[in-house]
Amino acid sequence: MLKTISIIGLGAMGTALANALIDAGNRTTVWNRTAARADALVARGAHRAETVGEAIAASDLIVLCLTDYVAVEATLAEVAPMLAGKTVINLTNGRPDEVRAVATRLGGHGARYLDGGIMATPPMIGTPDAFILYSGSSDAFETAQEQLAAFGQSHYLGEDPILAAVSDLALLSAMYGLFGGYLHATALAGSVGFTARQFLPLVEPWLAAMMTALPDYAERIDSGDHARDVMSNLAMQSAAISNIVATSRSQGIDPAFMEPIERLAQKRLAGGFGSDEISGIIKAMRGKEDAGLSR
Amino acid sequence: MLKTISIIGLGAMGTALANALIDAGNRTTVWNRTAARADALVARGAHRAETVGEAIAASDLIVLCLTDYVAVEATLAEVAPMLAGKTVINLTNGRPDEVRAVATRLGGHGARYLDGGIMATPPMIGTPDAFILYSGSSDAFETAQEQLAAFGQSHYLGEDPILAAVSDLALLSAMYGLFGGYLHATALAGSVGFTARQFLPLVEPWLAAMMTALPDYAERIDSGDHARDVMSNLAMQSAAISNIVATSRSQGIDPAFMEPIERLAQKRLAGGFGSDEISGIIKAMRGKEDAGLSR
Repeated sequence: MLKTISIIGLGAMGTALANALIDAGNRTTVWNRTAARADALVARGAHRAETVGEAIAASDLIVLCLTDYVAVEATLAEVAPMLAGKTVINLTNGRPDEVRAVATRLGGHGARYLDGGIMATPPMIGTPDAFILYSGSSDAFETAQEQLAAFGQSHYLGEDPILAAVSDLALLSAMYGLFGGYLHATALAGSVGFTARQFLPLVEPWLAAMMTALPDYAERIDSGDHARDVMSNLAMQSAAISNIVATSRSQGIDPAFMEPIERLAQKRLAGGFGSDEISGIIKAMRGKEDAGLSR
Repeated sequence: MLKTISIIGLGAMGTALANALIDAGNRTTVWNRTAARADALVARGAHRAETVGEAIAASDLIVLCLTDYVAVEATLAEVAPMLAGKTVINLTNGRPDEVRAVATRLGGHGARYLDGGIMATPPMIGTPDAFILYSGSSDAFETAQEQLAAFGQSHYLGEDPILAAVSDLALLSAMYGLFGGYLHATALAGSVGFTARQFLPLVEPWLAAMMTALPDYAERIDSGDHARDVMSNLAMQSAAISNIVATSRSQGIDPAFMEPIERLAQKRLAGGFGSDEISGIIKAMRGKEDAGLSR
């Protein structure tokens, strides 16, 4: 039985995680470089560790939530050997190469390592809307699962510790596509006098309707067949994309967000795939050198 | 009272529009350059015009649905004077400068001009999911509104005929952002072994959750204040974006779709807006020369 949990790092996210653990009735030890950030948590019943070493000694389950991997390395530099036999859950955002390095190092010290990607803002922590991706030691996940449920929905992705970080970055990239397209659209509509609030009742249901195309695209991507039952072919779409780019320019809007799809669509057109569905452009995005991070 | 409607152009979309009009009980005249494309419609009761002139003479309400504005100009070249006193609804996709030119020309011939942007695929026409944007003559819209309801939901945007075309392109740009982000995300997740179908149950609810940020962004865009009550500031997001770009490269995925947001975010960061919400990058997209299309 785990008796307590220690949280190392009390930024907005670490504080939200600590509050969720306290709310769920866990004995929670907290540490932050700037000690005052723990005050409100201590007032709610958390135990304040005076040093990182004390935070690690207090619990078998250690949650890291730091700014970046530079902070992770600096924080663990002297105390890593103390992690032997403990379960470390690292919720610090980073790249898969950084995750791999920390996982290997802590594994070498005998820790069970679970990496996590938090798909939520701090206020969402503890609500059903928050979900957290995990990968790494399945033993660690099973041991900690009940406590982790305090944060939101848990998705365990597999033993390779980089899976959560890559999936986290992938989901963020989908979000940035959505936001970039929305901002472009709103800027373009604004160029003929629509406020963002006037444009919202058009763009929201439109995007929701377009989301329903994704399952069909997913099937095409997995099968590699973008040519069957095409609803709107690339040649037609490419003409529309060029109209968007040209109109954005003439309306004084930077067409930056539309230039990649214009370029990739034209590359596929030049390859003879004008009658394919637009999902086929994923083939033009792949095939560069693999640096060895993938399994 | 309009007795009949004529549809000029029977591609997949024109055919769907004609079918919807026939289904709604309209006397429908059809014309297409390749006459055989009208056969199925004629079998369902449409009247076949032998020439464009005959199609125009048959009705007071003329719907154009052609491939592009080159086809519009070529089709109307000799018959434009016949449009005097008639209502022309042009549902051909194009740029606002093309719309402006046709609207001006047909207005000069005494036609009432209504431009439309169809936000639907052909199979959606006639269902409540289809919506069509209209702009131009409000008289034309009011006259035709009942017949136009056969196509789907109608949204009249204003007297300036370019409003529908610009809004159409704006909505498409939002869609291309969504699709580009989705394809990037799916390619990145695929680089560590997830199929598109495995990734779908993560990315669909995530995108649906992120859509709920748009009303807040719309308010910020209209007020110009991207600094109040910031949930996730640009400095943090910019670090995540750089991680996405670096990881995409090392995983062999073309980071094209993430490069514009990286560049614009860094431009805003350099301008001192690191503590703003990401919606503020819309300010970095505007402010180029206006070529005079906007009102």
